Amino acid sequence: MKPTTLSQIAELLNISISTVSKALKDYPDVSKRTKLLVKETAATLNYKPNAFAVNLRTKESKTIGIIIPEVVHHFFSSVIKGIIAQAEKKGYLVIILQSNESYKLEKKQIELLLDKHIDGILISLANETADFQHLYEVMARETPLVMFDKIAKLVNCSKVIINDRNAAYEATKHLIDTGCKRIAHFRGPLLPQNSIDRFLGYKKALTDHNIPYDSSLIYFCNNMSFEEGVQNAKKLLDDHTDVDGVFINTDLVAVGAISEFNRQNIKIPEEISVVGFSNWFMSSVISPTLTTIDQPGYLMGKNAFKLLYKEIRQRKENNIIIFKQIELPTKLIKRSSTRDII
Amino acid sequence: MKPTTLSQIAELLNISISTVSKALKDYPDVSKRTKLLVKETAATLNYKPNAFAVNLRTKESKTIGIIIPEVVHHFFSSVIKGIIAQAEKKGYLVIILQSNESYKLEKKQIELLLDKHIDGILISLANETADFQHLYEVMARETPLVMFDKIAKLVNCSKVIINDRNAAYEATKHLIDTGCKRIAHFRGPLLPQNSIDRFLGYKKALTDHNIPYDSSLIYFCNNMSFEEGVQNAKKLLDDHTDVDGVFINTDLVAVGAISEFNRQNIKIPEEISVVGFSNWFMSSVISPTLTTIDQPGYLMGKNAFKLLYKEIRQRKENNIIIFKQIELPTKLIKRSSTRDII
Repeated sequence: MKPTTLSQIAELLNISISTVSKALKDYPDVSKRTKLLVKETAATLNYKPNAFAVNLRTKESKTIGIIIPEVVHHFFSSVIKGIIAQAEKKGYLVIILQSNESYKLEKKQIELLLDKHIDGILISLANETADFQHLYEVMARETPLVMFDKIAKLVNCSKVIINDRNAAYEATKHLIDTGCKRIAHFRGPLLPQNSIDRFLGYKKALTDHNIPYDSSLIYFCNNMSFEEGVQNAKKLLDDHTDVDGVFINTDLVAVGAISEFNRQNIKIPEEISVVGFSNWFMSSVISPTLTTIDQPGYLMGKNAFKLLYKEIRQRKENNIIIFKQIELPTKLIKRSSTRDII
Repeated sequence: MKPTTLSQIAELLNISISTVSKALKDYPDVSKRTKLLVKETAATLNYKPNAFAVNLRTKESKTIGIIIPEVVHHFFSSVIKGIIAQAEKKGYLVIILQSNESYKLEKKQIELLLDKHIDGILISLANETADFQHLYEVMARETPLVMFDKIAKLVNCSKVIINDRNAAYEATKHLIDTGCKRIAHFRGPLLPQNSIDRFLGYKKALTDHNIPYDSSLIYFCNNMSFEEGVQNAKKLLDDHTDVDGVFINTDLVAVGAISEFNRQNIKIPEEISVVGFSNWFMSSVISPTLTTIDQPGYLMGKNAFKLLYKEIRQRKENNIIIFKQIELPTKLIKRSSTRDII
């Protein structure tokens, strides 16, 4: 039996050969429906891509690249550790690039990695990134790509995420369950999906429990720094005398807020209860210890590499690529910055 | 005037051409005296290396590699930030590899970087590393190399360090100055120079102040972890009832020790005073805040890149390479884990 060709699939489905080719490579400009049709037909007819072209493409460097916004960061460095542990098991070396939350730098780093012929890319997006052309370029070059934590919903590739909205809902609900009636939120910057989702989870928990949403209780943290926690805590105390709880986008900012509350002798949790997000190591050693959402960084790193490795293998073996999204569970860690449930 | 050749220098000094070539490239198997002689003669005769060979060598990738033991580490991640900030100014991209304190992995990573034709390597050695053949290989390939923090004294290249011995002396002296008479030390692993130097600084401070050195007061931390701080604090309290001060190799371990002292209701600093090393961010937010030695990580990163960049330029311009060692100042940060000076 002669091997199946692209033109046979194209003829059968009455579409162009280039559309078939693009659909098999998961190009973003082909509809989901067409991709599904083409992939099913290709699988049924036992289609195998041209071996020579594939070999050219799959010359392995046994090296992958990670692009992350920050290295001096408890969560991201835990992710890196997970990636390295899993990559080493499979004999891969890991190149780490730090985007400093800059879109321009992230783009340059993608080009660098493609240029170095690495076998795959893992990325958590910079806060600034709103255009995804550089990621489409990765996919057009058939370089395996997996996004983690800060992802772009519009880019069709494998992803490892948590459910930020549900986790933020749980954090806010914990404040409500422990008796808080007027709850502020220190949120992250406007763009990244996780900062939007955490805000939406907070808002939904309030309305589900008949607490009116008040936009004057929302404070922005653009750098997610300790100093912003201090400053926002000061502003919060100046602006409002009735706030009895605050849900904060990330632990580092929460630790800043706690230090300011301590300085002003505001009793935590009696006068103000605080919940953070991410479970940084320092949250378990400060005073009072911080109630927070545990975000499984190490596990996220391991899973991100596993998905990438799977795609590397699939491309090498000329199999059809099917993208997968893994959602990892989070957990509320109750410590001393919130009261007991009433 | 005809250009000076290697053989003219060799003839003049009555040594072989290969020795001259090795001396100019700073190979480790040529004596310091010979290197100095050759370099002086070469400079006097205005010797320039063969341009073609040099061009082959200096094809730039505008990328450098860093190898560090740990990413999830306040000090090392600050160094990385400093390197990236300085590298970006000069248009260089930075590849980060984590050795996990493993000699085997570090060696493999050096090979990878050489293989990828990066323009230079910055390295802080793994605790396990006792053989330096892989670093000599870097130098033999004429790839610029700068070591920082955890260095090998035997490898002849540019270095950025602190004076660990003096800093540890100052830390221990502060305990003595504040009235401590029986001072323990939680030290790092056996091999790395900085853990040896901190131990020696501690020991010298004791003997200079007529406090007898007692080896039963030395506790080892092989992973430099929070948990080791907890365990060693427990052991210390079990073994000795008269200890009133402890100097600890690194802040993370010190934070572990403080949490155990707090748990057992040992008053800090009244019953036991604690001094750490490195000034991790969390040391300023725990309770009590930790007296420690500030180690300028960001500045170390900036200086390490500057030295590397200088060597990249020197090699490109066919200048003779002169290695430099920068020693950065440290500073005692007095906080609440030690008493006032008496």
